Amino acid sequence: MIDDRRARMALACVTEPGDPELQRQIQLYGPQEVWERLSGAEHGETNQAWARRARAVDLDAVQRIAETAGLQYLVPGDPHWPRHLSDLDHSEPVADMRGAPLGLWTRGDTSLLPRLRDRGVAIVGSRAATAYGDHMALEFAAEFTTQGWVVVSGGAYGIDAAAHRGVLATGGATVCVLACGVDSSYPRAHERLLADIATSGLLVGELPPGANPMRSRFLSRNRLIAALTAGTVVVEAAMRSGARNTASWAEALSRPIMAVPGPVTAANSWTPHQLIRSQGAELVTCAGEAIEYLAPLGQALLPIPAGGAERAFDRLPARAQQVFEHLPSTGWASAEQIAAGCGLPPATVWQELNGLLDRAMVRRTRTGWQAVPAAAR
Amino acid sequence: MIDDRRARMALACVTEPGDPELQRQIQLYGPQEVWERLSGAEHGETNQAWARRARAVDLDAVQRIAETAGLQYLVPGDPHWPRHLSDLDHSEPVADMRGAPLGLWTRGDTSLLPRLRDRGVAIVGSRAATAYGDHMALEFAAEFTTQGWVVVSGGAYGIDAAAHRGVLATGGATVCVLACGVDSSYPRAHERLLADIATSGLLVGELPPGANPMRSRFLSRNRLIAALTAGTVVVEAAMRSGARNTASWAEALSRPIMAVPGPVTAANSWTPHQLIRSQGAELVTCAGEAIEYLAPLGQALLPIPAGGAERAFDRLPARAQQVFEHLPSTGWASAEQIAAGCGLPPATVWQELNGLLDRAMVRRTRTGWQAVPAAAR
Repeated sequence: MIDDRRARMALACVTEPGDPELQRQIQLYGPQEVWERLSGAEHGETNQAWARRARAVDLDAVQRIAETAGLQYLVPGDPHWPRHLSDLDHSEPVADMRGAPLGLWTRGDTSLLPRLRDRGVAIVGSRAATAYGDHMALEFAAEFTTQGWVVVSGGAYGIDAAAHRGVLATGGATVCVLACGVDSSYPRAHERLLADIATSGLLVGELPPGANPMRSRFLSRNRLIAALTAGTVVVEAAMRSGARNTASWAEALSRPIMAVPGPVTAANSWTPHQLIRSQGAELVTCAGEAIEYLAPLGQALLPIPAGGAERAFDRLPARAQQVFEHLPSTGWASAEQIAAGCGLPPATVWQELNGLLDRAMVRRTRTGWQAVPAAAR
Repeated sequence: MIDDRRARMALACVTEPGDPELQRQIQLYGPQEVWERLSGAEHGETNQAWARRARAVDLDAVQRIAETAGLQYLVPGDPHWPRHLSDLDHSEPVADMRGAPLGLWTRGDTSLLPRLRDRGVAIVGSRAATAYGDHMALEFAAEFTTQGWVVVSGGAYGIDAAAHRGVLATGGATVCVLACGVDSSYPRAHERLLADIATSGLLVGELPPGANPMRSRFLSRNRLIAALTAGTVVVEAAMRSGARNTASWAEALSRPIMAVPGPVTAANSWTPHQLIRSQGAELVTCAGEAIEYLAPLGQALLPIPAGGAERAFDRLPARAQQVFEHLPSTGWASAEQIAAGCGLPPATVWQELNGLLDRAMVRRTRTGWQAVPAAAR
């Protein structure tokens, strides 16, 4: 049977990110069995389009491209896997998408990923940014970086690029989540910027090498930006803007949304003002205010010991790790939901959860279970 | 004995608006007795500075000036007296000031005054407004006017003037609250603007004819702007700005505060953003949003019958009117507080309050009593 890593890699070649049908099947059968069903194709009830594409997948070719381009493929359980992405398995869908990614293609420093739940912040906004928006994104990004936060954005024109550049200008590391293969450079004009990000920071995405960006892939990418970070700052965005989609993901994941105000007379102020007025976004005028909002009890001031968050996890038995990886870090999941997620019998899950409770790695309420953030243990 | 109207007029000549000691004495003894004590000056415990000034007051001269300038003096009980100013007798002090004005000097259409509790809105902001601020104040004022709202401001340079001009440009009536005598033109460069306001709208203030503006008088004037209106919109204001004082009065009076955002990079955006972040001000981008916030249940859409609000009051017996005038329209006052305010025995006040309750003109909770707005009856 194919191993879990290759099953995930292969499935990512034939399906679209955020497909709710894919998530349902993964939760029912796990990646290996879903792949066997597709590639075998003897079971009539499988998705025929996926099965057709599955027959054409050449995983060895994919891995050769990845090696040449210096890419890594991370899957749940890998040391740098950002476990908080499992929140996506428990959130409401947004624009008909849902579910954690099968895996993450990466180029650069993957050790940034697990830090993002506590110290990562997304800066997103309009591609058609004004000089004001560029200025604010740069300022926020530079201040976040000097305060020990990792800025995440999407590498697009406008606000995204200004945010990445604000980090690079202060000599920091930034994470760029791509809507295409991590070996590609999109947009083309940002080839140099993306190379710089990969050198000091990280390029990451769930699409296989060579995949092209498409409209739906920008939306599924936005879900990763929101899910990877502790909160999202919207700088400038007009009424129709991908930033609203990212903010919707943050809301679905119970991650704080912040917005930078601007002149009412500018079209790009529409979304930030609307988020503040109607979606409970916090008005922020500088990164310091955003940090205060994200880490209200001065938590931001406590340094996280390097790798400390990982160590407790690493010491767990394999089955406890498996259960822990399927816990949400915001919101609550029942033992049954967790059992469905990790494919273990509910009784086993129950036992492991209680073991984790003794280690103070999980919290429990009447509503369900939740992972305790490393910083709070 | 001097009559109530002349006693108030005279007291306003010798005291400063918002003086907490004056309010205390008025609540204990009423204007007539306070004046007799001062002008007689045989009682040793009276305020000697006031007594000295009282001996120099020439009320007949004041009235001659007022007549020449076409001024009127309104006192509580007059048909157009804005009864909601009594909220100032129940609010927390701001910058050591408190209390309703003794009376109001007016030049123009006094029938605007009682409408302001339900349909008046203050627009305030920086004297050193930018083109953006002027534009927003004009837009808000024009839209408020066309929606049937009366815009109140202070006649100063910058945002105030832009707000008044926005009303005049749409052919509406605006109310300007002055920090000097209503016969004066301050600032001098606004002589024409103030004359235009008086022609179609109203100039109003508590200082006697000829009184000059002073720093403390701007602060006491701000309390009238906040107390006269249903809510206050702050357009542009730097960190040190009179608009913050007006907003503090609105807060003390439980009147809604709204703020128009602007570029974070402009000093004049500081106060609006701060009010939204820390004082619960509503972010508004147009007058329509402000109206929705001020009259949330579509109440704004119901036309108020002209004079309808007054009629129920006019039909009341004199003593019930007296009690009603001392009720807050926001917040709550105990029967004892109301008795202290109107100088009647608590048992009488209690009886009148229950009569008003039968007429649905007052509300009662465990905390105390409150006047029901005319529009809600």
